[in-house]
Amino acid sequence: MNRSEIAHVLKQRREKLALHFSGPSILWSGNESPRNFPANKFPFRASSHFLFFVGQSLPNAAIHLQAGKLILFMDDADENDALWHGSSPRRQEVAIQIGAEGEYPLNELEQWSKEAATIPVQDFITQQHQENLLQRQLNKANELYGCDHQLAKAIVKVRLTHDHCSISSIQNAAEVTIQAHLAGMAATPRAQTEADIRAAMEAVITSHDLTCAYNSIVTVQGDVLHNQSYHRPIKNGELLLADVGAEAKNGWASDVTRTWPTSGSFSSTQRDIYDIVLAAHNTCIEKAAPGIEYKDLHLLAAITLAKGLVSLGILKGNAETLVEQDAHALFFPHGVGHLLGLDVHDMEDLGDLAGYAPGRQRCDRFGLSFLRLNRPLQKGMIVTIEPGFYQVPALLENPDRKTKYQDCINWETLAKFKDVNGIRIENDVLITDTGSSILTAELPIMPSEIEACLQ
Amino acid sequence: MNRSEIAHVLKQRREKLALHFSGPSILWSGNESPRNFPANKFPFRASSHFLFFVGQSLPNAAIHLQAGKLILFMDDADENDALWHGSSPRRQEVAIQIGAEGEYPLNELEQWSKEAATIPVQDFITQQHQENLLQRQLNKANELYGCDHQLAKAIVKVRLTHDHCSISSIQNAAEVTIQAHLAGMAATPRAQTEADIRAAMEAVITSHDLTCAYNSIVTVQGDVLHNQSYHRPIKNGELLLADVGAEAKNGWASDVTRTWPTSGSFSSTQRDIYDIVLAAHNTCIEKAAPGIEYKDLHLLAAITLAKGLVSLGILKGNAETLVEQDAHALFFPHGVGHLLGLDVHDMEDLGDLAGYAPGRQRCDRFGLSFLRLNRPLQKGMIVTIEPGFYQVPALLENPDRKTKYQDCINWETLAKFKDVNGIRIENDVLITDTGSSILTAELPIMPSEIEACLQ
Repeated sequence: MNRSEIAHVLKQRREKLALHFSGPSILWSGNESPRNFPANKFPFRASSHFLFFVGQSLPNAAIHLQAGKLILFMDDADENDALWHGSSPRRQEVAIQIGAEGEYPLNELEQWSKEAATIPVQDFITQQHQENLLQRQLNKANELYGCDHQLAKAIVKVRLTHDHCSISSIQNAAEVTIQAHLAGMAATPRAQTEADIRAAMEAVITSHDLTCAYNSIVTVQGDVLHNQSYHRPIKNGELLLADVGAEAKNGWASDVTRTWPTSGSFSSTQRDIYDIVLAAHNTCIEKAAPGIEYKDLHLLAAITLAKGLVSLGILKGNAETLVEQDAHALFFPHGVGHLLGLDVHDMEDLGDLAGYAPGRQRCDRFGLSFLRLNRPLQKGMIVTIEPGFYQVPALLENPDRKTKYQDCINWETLAKFKDVNGIRIENDVLITDTGSSILTAELPIMPSEIEACLQ
Repeated sequence: MNRSEIAHVLKQRREKLALHFSGPSILWSGNESPRNFPANKFPFRASSHFLFFVGQSLPNAAIHLQAGKLILFMDDADENDALWHGSSPRRQEVAIQIGAEGEYPLNELEQWSKEAATIPVQDFITQQHQENLLQRQLNKANELYGCDHQLAKAIVKVRLTHDHCSISSIQNAAEVTIQAHLAGMAATPRAQTEADIRAAMEAVITSHDLTCAYNSIVTVQGDVLHNQSYHRPIKNGELLLADVGAEAKNGWASDVTRTWPTSGSFSSTQRDIYDIVLAAHNTCIEKAAPGIEYKDLHLLAAITLAKGLVSLGILKGNAETLVEQDAHALFFPHGVGHLLGLDVHDMEDLGDLAGYAPGRQRCDRFGLSFLRLNRPLQKGMIVTIEPGFYQVPALLENPDRKTKYQDCINWETLAKFKDVNGIRIENDVLITDTGSSILTAELPIMPSEIEACLQ
């Protein structure tokens, strides 16, 4: 997309916001967070709410939005900054690129701050600046009230579905992510440790000059859902679960998981469970369409998994009844997916404001409490579909659960599947007019296709 | 090193601290910092002051130190944590590993906090916890007062020189760093962009399951001292400057720079300047020894560079006089190096408390203001030696400087060296009994050696 097209899309976004929120608002981009000392900083990543309306990761900038008009506030870099960090875009230039209706240095922001709503950013220095300028204490982003809460609700309405610009950015991120997963598979035969496979995957993302959208999971211990250690040796007969996604230059995320056999081919038990998880994945995607309740996709995945596990003799009884009892959640303890956008769990800083339709709340049922999305799907939403099967000792060996589910599980049969500790299959899915479209469809998903990449 | 040796070294460190600080102190490890939303966090890195005494990057832990005794405060993970993050070391286990004299859950810390000194950590949540518990506002770490200032001074005394455990950890980091640089050289002939070379280098660090000690600089625009963009194409005839260092598992850093020709061989102009920078590097390392003032090494590097530039006809006049006038700083605008340890600029969170000997302050002279270390060297210190030559437009085209230095520079001769925009050569150097030892000596530094790695 050329610059004037981008400026046009950005203008449409703020006009859409104005339909839902009439008051003034100020959104800050934020600053770098220090790592182990103030000058050693983590790479800067602008606040997603700011990025949505600006499209560029400008550190220490702010925008004033009202009635579809955007005023940009930032300072031009000084000479010292050029010495250490090179030339940075100048405010006037940026203002033209984003189609701003005005541009001022930061110290002018104060006179625009009266009664402005905002969303708190992640870094502390900017948060303090927000509070000083607005002369009030800000609540956490997931506990907003008053005009901030109204603004957040309006932003959710605008960010919930995607325009062609964000879809194409997520597609760019998805393309690099697919290359990263292929590199991970290709590196597996010679990998000594999980870290070797992670390195091969992230090198693809780095070589495209992109960053990871989240901390990679690359592990032979897939039963640890957010495993972030990478030291284990790669031994034959295990499954490698890789949940790795690139983030596009303008912040849009992809989020993809594949699971593959370290030996190059699935054992029959691994294959049996893989096929069940794949069936759950496929059936959700077939069903996904505008108007469909995402929670129903989650339950569909759960029932498909339960049916498969009954057919293998691992679960006993009727699949629907097992799901009502949450027996499936012993093996599938997370939700089937979430919103995807500028954040990998999009707008999760606002708690469940984006994920849950108005009036809905998290359910505390074991099988539903981790469901992050509970809304009817709409055209233009992008969600992940990511069913999984895990043998988590902390769940399966919990005495209370063991008693509760003793009649549902055939432990002897389950023991035969001990080489399947974690499988997850995850794609990024765009809801279209009549159904859905997989943005990450180019990445192999069938066992035979995956095995072919492991040679 | 085995566990009991490590516990022994950790005990020696706290006993050494007790010689310089008799009061109680509490050091916190800190928590993860959020990236774009609270659940998407940057990888955890414990506070260096905590790490120094504990040797393990435990999130959300604290230690109470007094009279050489260490009490560990942390909570054991709950079941939910095991589901998402896997099993974590238990407090009792850790206490044995680090030779703690006691161990309690975090909520017991309050009764140990009376009159304890501390150093503020980097993340905001923990900083708030520190202030709440100590019931006082903490100043920034570079503006400490009272008992915190006394504690910081004592910690500087202990961390300023290294024991065999930290030396061996930095050596481990240095070994991986050397491999990373070799991989960067090897990747250069086929690299399309700076990002490709960065990816090859960081993949080595990632595959060793280590992290970068700081944001990598991998650029054909080496005149931007802390350049952190990686999008430029690799064209023949340029110089690639790579400042990349690994951090050991227990937090110890390495920090290494090499500069190499993208075409595979240095042009004669590139070679001429490279030889001068290398001479400055070598003469500093030959001279480095206990008792030598680090500032004198900086001036030695400056004079060596100035002499070389005079001999090439770029500078005019006497080298010593040119350095007194700061003319060298037009091309070498930073200090010749800094302390290296758990932080890549070690203890820089404390401002110049570690870098500058008591009573000394930064000088505001153009050629000295960026000098980060101004102390006599001591046996066991680890410092970087990193002279450089840069053509920074913001410096060379500044009208005031142009006037001031008009008689010192032969602009016509300088113009012949336009293919040399930035060269830096940096090694990690341990001060020994009688001189110094280069921890990163295995990495090629001679032009011919480097050219051999680029084939």
